[in-house]
Amino acid sequence: MHYSHKDIANLDRITRLKLVNSVSGIKPANLIGTIDSKQTTNLAVFSSVVHLGSNPSLLGFVSRPQTGESGHTLENIKQNGVFTINHIHPEFTKQAHYTSAKFDRSVSEFARCGFSEEYIEGFAAPFVKESRVKVGMQFKEAIPIPLNGTILVIGEIAHLILPDTALEKGDINLEDLNSIGISGLNSYYELKKIAQHPYVRANEVPEFNG
Amino acid sequence: MHYSHKDIANLDRITRLKLVNSVSGIKPANLIGTIDSKQTTNLAVFSSVVHLGSNPSLLGFVSRPQTGESGHTLENIKQNGVFTINHIHPEFTKQAHYTSAKFDRSVSEFARCGFSEEYIEGFAAPFVKESRVKVGMQFKEAIPIPLNGTILVIGEIAHLILPDTALEKGDINLEDLNSIGISGLNSYYELKKIAQHPYVRANEVPEFNG
Repeated sequence: MHYSHKDIANLDRITRLKLVNSVSGIKPANLIGTIDSKQTTNLAVFSSVVHLGSNPSLLGFVSRPQTGESGHTLENIKQNGVFTINHIHPEFTKQAHYTSAKFDRSVSEFARCGFSEEYIEGFAAPFVKESRVKVGMQFKEAIPIPLNGTILVIGEIAHLILPDTALEKGDINLEDLNSIGISGLNSYYELKKIAQHPYVRANEVPEFNG
Repeated sequence: MHYSHKDIANLDRITRLKLVNSVSGIKPANLIGTIDSKQTTNLAVFSSVVHLGSNPSLLGFVSRPQTGESGHTLENIKQNGVFTINHIHPEFTKQAHYTSAKFDRSVSEFARCGFSEEYIEGFAAPFVKESRVKVGMQFKEAIPIPLNGTILVIGEIAHLILPDTALEKGDINLEDLNSIGISGLNSYYELKKIAQHPYVRANEVPEFNG
């Protein structure tokens, strides 16, 4: 199957949406938690969280141009300067998925979709109690992407909460944590660790013949 | 385990690198193929490919500030205006991982790490023959992220090649394709599909009590 640029442009909207959302491969499954100036909390599923750097420790996510949940999330972040990133696990993919509904601003997806708010003293944004990896983020910058009106929202890690057992020789084992991935708009995948390779130096590269 | 901002800053460099590279969750495993003006090809593993939009169909990836492979990739893209994104599969995670070694510019990671180049007429960048999902990208924009000197490299899909059997009701099944994910710097994960939820409308959200 070979789609050209023109073939893709000619697809109906839903088919193109599903296809193009899948081609980058597996995406991380996270819930982003925020709070507005009236203390109404917001929770929304995002599959676009991306690592930007470790020193300072920066993560970003893509905020879509349309109004709706993605809009509330960014509005709240701009109001309070903080947000949380919380891993999704198999037992609540359905609840997590339904946070993407366009609820009214006064409705908190925490209560509506069955999640519990958790707080750290001195940090305004709500964490998801049910998540096993929770990251508190300090908002740093919103970089517009003029090509399509999306916005890359960047924060620095202020708090990182994970089980004592999560670290294995300094790495987080996502299979043991039961963290999951998303493909396309609505498919959820469990993870099974198959390989771990050493840090690479050019003079230690094996011969790969054939 | 609770790491504060200060705790993270005080970690030794390698521990911080491993930890912060893992907290966003699973990352897509792709090989990015390019070619320079002397027709030397380049191939490098990237875990930062992110979906930016479907109309136009835009994908981005993060280019690190240091020289080395990531630098060659972006240089080549600027020279020729095109690149390819190719899924990684379990049978070649090791070869793919070793493309991250800092080889000399004259060495092609295709030959050195055991991959075959594949071309489409009229499109300069090399695809990875061994990949089951191959995306030909037209370079659109490089957006600097001043916070840490990284660059968000954005392209539009020019070609999309995948098996006829990959599409399942319009979705790509990543388990059937045997596409994989990366965590941290060097851990590779297989995918197992566990759920697919419908597109969400607010008036169709189930009750989640408890």
